[in-house]
Amino acid sequence: MDEYIRRLRDGSLKLYALEKELSPNDAVSVRRSFIEEQTGVTLDRIGDCSISLDAVVKKNCENMIGTIQVPLGVAGPVLIKGEYAEGSCYLPLATTEGALIASVNRGCSLISANGGADVRVMKDGMTRAPVFAAKSIVHAKDITDWIHTHEDQIRTEAEATTRFGKLTHIEVTTAGTSVFVRLAFSTGDAMGMNMVTIASEKVAKLICDETGARIIALSGNWCTDKKPAAINMVLGRGKTVMAGVYLSNDNIGKVLKTTASALLEVNMRKNLVGSARAGSLGFNAHAANIIAAMFIACGQDPAHVVEGSLCITTVDPADDGVYVSVTLPALPVGTVGGGTGVETQAECLRMLGVSGSGDPPGSNARKLAEIVAAGVLAGELSLLGALAAQHLARAHSTLGR
Amino acid sequence: MDEYIRRLRDGSLKLYALEKELSPNDAVSVRRSFIEEQTGVTLDRIGDCSISLDAVVKKNCENMIGTIQVPLGVAGPVLIKGEYAEGSCYLPLATTEGALIASVNRGCSLISANGGADVRVMKDGMTRAPVFAAKSIVHAKDITDWIHTHEDQIRTEAEATTRFGKLTHIEVTTAGTSVFVRLAFSTGDAMGMNMVTIASEKVAKLICDETGARIIALSGNWCTDKKPAAINMVLGRGKTVMAGVYLSNDNIGKVLKTTASALLEVNMRKNLVGSARAGSLGFNAHAANIIAAMFIACGQDPAHVVEGSLCITTVDPADDGVYVSVTLPALPVGTVGGGTGVETQAECLRMLGVSGSGDPPGSNARKLAEIVAAGVLAGELSLLGALAAQHLARAHSTLGR
Amino acid sequence: MDEYIRRLRDGSLKLYALEKELSPNDAVSVRRSFIEEQTGVTLDRIGDCSISLDAVVKKNCENMIGTIQVPLGVAGPVLIKGEYAEGSCYLPLATTEGALIASVNRGCSLISANGGADVRVMKDGMTRAPVFAAKSIVHAKDITDWIHTHEDQIRTEAEATTRFGKLTHIEVTTAGTSVFVRLAFSTGDAMGMNMVTIASEKVAKLICDETGARIIALSGNWCTDKKPAAINMVLGRGKTVMAGVYLSNDNIGKVLKTTASALLEVNMRKNLVGSARAGSLGFNAHAANIIAAMFIACGQDPAHVVEGSLCITTVDPADDGVYVSVTLPALPVGTVGGGTGVETQAECLRMLGVSGSGDPPGSNARKLAEIVAAGVLAGELSLLGALAAQHLARAHSTLGR
Amino acid sequence: MDEYIRRLRDGSLKLYALEKELSPNDAVSVRRSFIEEQTGVTLDRIGDCSISLDAVVKKNCENMIGTIQVPLGVAGPVLIKGEYAEGSCYLPLATTEGALIASVNRGCSLISANGGADVRVMKDGMTRAPVFAAKSIVHAKDITDWIHTHEDQIRTEAEATTRFGKLTHIEVTTAGTSVFVRLAFSTGDAMGMNMVTIASEKVAKLICDETGARIIALSGNWCTDKKPAAINMVLGRGKTVMAGVYLSNDNIGKVLKTTASALLEVNMRKNLVGSARAGSLGFNAHAANIIAAMFIACGQDPAHVVEGSLCITTVDPADDGVYVSVTLPALPVGTVGGGTGVETQAECLRMLGVSGSGDPPGSNARKLAEIVAAGVLAGELSLLGALAAQHLARAHSTLGR
Repeated sequence: MDEYIRRLRDGSLKLYALEKELSPNDAVSVRRSFIEEQTGVTLDRIGDCSISLDAVVKKNCENMIGTIQVPLGVAGPVLIKGEYAEGSCYLPLATTEGALIASVNRGCSLISANGGADVRVMKDGMTRAPVFAAKSIVHAKDITDWIHTHEDQIRTEAEATTRFGKLTHIEVTTAGTSVFVRLAFSTGDAMGMNMVTIASEKVAKLICDETGARIIALSGNWCTDKKPAAINMVLGRGKTVMAGVYLSNDNIGKVLKTTASALLEVNMRKNLVGSARAGSLGFNAHAANIIAAMFIACGQDPAHVVEGSLCITTVDPADDGVYVSVTLPALPVGTVGGGTGVETQAECLRMLGVSGSGDPPGSNARKLAEIVAAGVLAGELSLLGALAAQHLARAHSTLGR
Repeated sequence: MDEYIRRLRDGSLKLYALEKELSPNDAVSVRRSFIEEQTGVTLDRIGDCSISLDAVVKKNCENMIGTIQVPLGVAGPVLIKGEYAEGSCYLPLATTEGALIASVNRGCSLISANGGADVRVMKDGMTRAPVFAAKSIVHAKDITDWIHTHEDQIRTEAEATTRFGKLTHIEVTTAGTSVFVRLAFSTGDAMGMNMVTIASEKVAKLICDETGARIIALSGNWCTDKKPAAINMVLGRGKTVMAGVYLSNDNIGKVLKTTASALLEVNMRKNLVGSARAGSLGFNAHAANIIAAMFIACGQDPAHVVEGSLCITTVDPADDGVYVSVTLPALPVGTVGGGTGVETQAECLRMLGVSGSGDPPGSNARKLAEIVAAGVLAGELSLLGALAAQHLARAHSTLGR
Repeated sequence: MDEYIRRLRDGSLKLYALEKELSPNDAVSVRRSFIEEQTGVTLDRIGDCSISLDAVVKKNCENMIGTIQVPLGVAGPVLIKGEYAEGSCYLPLATTEGALIASVNRGCSLISANGGADVRVMKDGMTRAPVFAAKSIVHAKDITDWIHTHEDQIRTEAEATTRFGKLTHIEVTTAGTSVFVRLAFSTGDAMGMNMVTIASEKVAKLICDETGARIIALSGNWCTDKKPAAINMVLGRGKTVMAGVYLSNDNIGKVLKTTASALLEVNMRKNLVGSARAGSLGFNAHAANIIAAMFIACGQDPAHVVEGSLCITTVDPADDGVYVSVTLPALPVGTVGGGTGVETQAECLRMLGVSGSGDPPGSNARKLAEIVAAGVLAGELSLLGALAAQHLARAHSTLGR
Repeated sequence: MDEYIRRLRDGSLKLYALEKELSPNDAVSVRRSFIEEQTGVTLDRIGDCSISLDAVVKKNCENMIGTIQVPLGVAGPVLIKGEYAEGSCYLPLATTEGALIASVNRGCSLISANGGADVRVMKDGMTRAPVFAAKSIVHAKDITDWIHTHEDQIRTEAEATTRFGKLTHIEVTTAGTSVFVRLAFSTGDAMGMNMVTIASEKVAKLICDETGARIIALSGNWCTDKKPAAINMVLGRGKTVMAGVYLSNDNIGKVLKTTASALLEVNMRKNLVGSARAGSLGFNAHAANIIAAMFIACGQDPAHVVEGSLCITTVDPADDGVYVSVTLPALPVGTVGGGTGVETQAECLRMLGVSGSGDPPGSNARKLAEIVAAGVLAGELSLLGALAAQHLARAHSTLGR
């Protein structure tokens, strides 16, 4: 071990190259020791990990030194009435934000007490949008026209790269000499970013060859990936999913200690008018909290919380109560690939009955989307209720940091 | 143990109440067993955690059943020239997204080879914006006027609730009968959301008492917390921080295998024009990836990746090279509270020399902000370079999921 | 006359009812006299109008009292190389903003000196998006599904209401129980808002009858009409049109007194980065100025300047110069209907060779869109040049208000 | 006359130079004849104008050939209860959009029948934001710091250029090496854009001299002028003004033929949720229509309709009715300068009692802002009511184009 550290120290061995000479466990261990030496800090807890590293160091994490342990709790059970998720389940939430799980839990109770949450996947398509340079706006028009008249050829080219991906939609736009081609794919149970990037590369090559366009970037930000963008609000990205529940006046009073009209007013003034006045693309209370916690638990890409935050929460007046809903225009989720194979994350997916490929393909990913939407609904219900009852700060000071 | 599970099963014991009767470790263990029974899934790896649970079950996570292990790697060292962070450091990144750390690592090398990254905290203030209801727009004007003429009284009231929080700015706006009061505080080394919520509650009470306003919600979404909002782009939230580096043509060619003009063009067409055409509030390549990975590693709130994604990346022509920068208008970070005390996360903070309270107070949080900004710069440099060299998909298929 | 005024005064005759008893000229005259009496102000100039009122009082303006005279100037000639507009033309601009026409004029010279402006209509479709209420999110999904599977029936129903309108695209989205159906039509030479509203009413009735949806409003703001909305940036509305021109370094120096690199820098820092930092949906210098002036001159709806302001201006490096473009994602224009028949406006349209219906239908409206785009390009070129030369304020103080 | 046309034809006389040799009337006449000759179109009606041209050709319009006549009608009277506007007035609207004035008129009746509209100016400040280039982000921080510590000196410099302008607020931000300085001024009765541009030029010079910053453009789009930008929604620009009115259930039924709950639902689903789903910065029904018509009538800059369109319309439940409001965050208006001196426009301003300078200075411009807000409220009420009653299309087909 000392020998490796010596070589790291003198630069004759690169930090990322340890796995070429050592087993994953040893490589991670040597690297951690080296970092401890360099920083003068012991990293015992980081090192004391229990997941199997073989796949992880190849697929998930370069220069690995151990793991971060994120506390995992459960909320629920919550009754879900989806097309893929049916019945009660416990929601896994990995978080360090005190009061969050308690809040979601209360929402779950309320949902279940009111007969369960409706959930529906409205749209499904992962996107990638390469950007090309044209020589002039005339050339940009020619490229655009070529694409519109060769959609079948583009589809064939794209789908040749993937077993599960199906090209479902092509949208083209231009800004001067920049041409953006947004390709949407259904991607089975994978979140699909990698799949669509590879397919886009082939499509990009075809377009360049046929039109004289010059590829600038395989992602031209018209996808839009991991940036908060109206295009995803308008057209969706990943799963577009909604959840809704009718709440009786009786339950609003008993569980939330508030009233229908107070819920209506909080949602209107805060989630709709307040967000409008802030120039916000998110019209919700704290959807990102639940999405972040469930994404970390379930091995999803936590940077996709950005897309998730475009949630719209509504409260409608209804007979003897209200109908509350959440709409997530852009929720990228998958049950294969990414972090889904890391063992602790895989356990969470199994807990939800969505680990690995679904039957038919895509059904597991959609079921996961439905469950996350139900979780977001629970979180919104609880926080709206808490705000209505004016005790946000009190809850935080009891349970919080 | 069976007895507790029996009581959980028959409902005579609530899942969240286990800690009242059992030690944290036993409570977590019983709860996990119960969930295993309910779901029929074994949760061994989740259960095999090594962090101390005593504080965690009280402060960070209700209904805890174990931990999620997120692979942790390092990038760097990267040379940073900040007002708080000075010298080289290794960046801890917790991620399951293959290729990410390798990418950041390459950016770190490039930065260091070019003399290091400039970093500066430009603004510092955590915000909370309660929303009030007025009786009419005339009343809304009266409330607004009262606030403007009583800023000192509001400050006194707010600061009485906190040792470190200082009220630095009050912004008021209205939308019809809704009045929004955005209170910005410097919050020492804490991220500060809890602190400012408590202070806002006192301010809200004062405003209600004096003006007849009716409090609707302590957060009126004009804060804006965990939603992508232009107000944070315009006014900042948490730390506003920038990082920049000059790259010589020589290094652009050697490390990134591309050219200054290609970098300029990619940044223009993708990050600026592409984001514009998408109605995006983020003008960067993948800032959220780095922020998510560093936030999970360092015990920050991962839902704040939403604010972080409002990054603007620029590439300026410069003599014999380019000057590349990232601007993070809204980066909420802290080194005390939240998840910073969980042991694996605390080790990461120690690795960066920012664990706990700084001297003077606030310096650790600012140093952390500077380091994250340097990490984002490294990530942007590397991905822009990769896109310029048209090998994004290839990198993914080698290292990716 | 006194008798009518007496009746207006005592309320026995309504102001809007004068045309029922009097000729248009007399009705306008009596009404103006009554307003003069009521306000104590003489309205001689307003009354001294020369257009024929017969059609105007029926189609364009209720409660008419005269006309506002907006100064009309010309810029140009400008050489245009479009698919509809070819050759040189003078641009009519109705404005009271000093320096505007001089500025556009300079841009026209520059364009012509560089061989003319490329212009292309990229997309063409006027939209209307009714909003419906569903009973639950499940019902919202059912309505959405019904629409997707009955596009042909919807098309038939819609097109039965109009001779020129063709339904080209249907986009559906939901937010909780609200269902938005965005119908895009090609509308011949009409701007088409009225046409698509009538067609939408029929479609709305069909959807309600078949699905149990409840119509809430024929415009659900997902159109989006006369509000600045990213959906129009993303999907277009009315005409999507671009104009571009190559400028030689020589002409940049001679006409604009600046350099290619200065133009690049101004466009980058102001139009792209500045707009980004402002949370803007417009990435241009002053497109709205030219659009407003040409719209008033040509009888277009001036409230549509809002859509027009979503312009993106780009400056690309090019051999021995730059290529400058403007992209107008959403320019609603028409050459029949609206204000196009008012005599002074009709003269402007004739000046441009686009009065009335084109042959084939739609060609006049597209030609007008191309001409407006060329005008916007001229305005952008001139102002970017002026800013680059740092003399905005000086120009204003000489020519301005 | 032929001689001048001959010289125009052979290029020895420039079109814009006619006023140097001829009286305004003759210059306009010769120029029009030349354009008639060049285009082969007679421009009789354009030429038959009745306003005095002397000032117009100098201040408002270069290359003038006549005027466009925009039909002018009135709506009202409407009862206004502002701080500047008090009592009943008729609203002048210049429009070619059939049904618009009838619609506003109905809203005016409803407002008056319910005791009048509350109106308040909430904020007042015209802005200009020069953009500077720094050498690095470190330099950008230094420039920012210098500005923050020299606000008094900047104020002195700025105010030396103007009699009425007072610098009320300085906001600084950066994006990498671009530094934006947003200067807000109260500008008396002028809309103030010219005034603040001149003042900004002086400030820019000072900043450059003292900090080594390089001025890039006097307007850096962080103002934001004539582009739809969230910064104006967040911070305001020109006048921020609100209007509101309580409507009894009785009047809602009698005048609007609808109900309070229908109004609530239309506003929620269309103006709030629909706009949210469209990524819109405007949350209203058709504010831009009224603003455009009143701006053209009153000599305001019609390109500022863009800012005006950022309107938020709210409907609150109230005892036995509703409270409806409009909030215009950014309404740039003035009663001196610009088009206010053109005779027909000046008559409209006199009709409203706001022509020229107010006493005290600024009161006329504020009164105009209040009146426009009341007009927007009338328009919103009427259209919301019409939509609620589902007869938008029918109204259009009767009165429309």
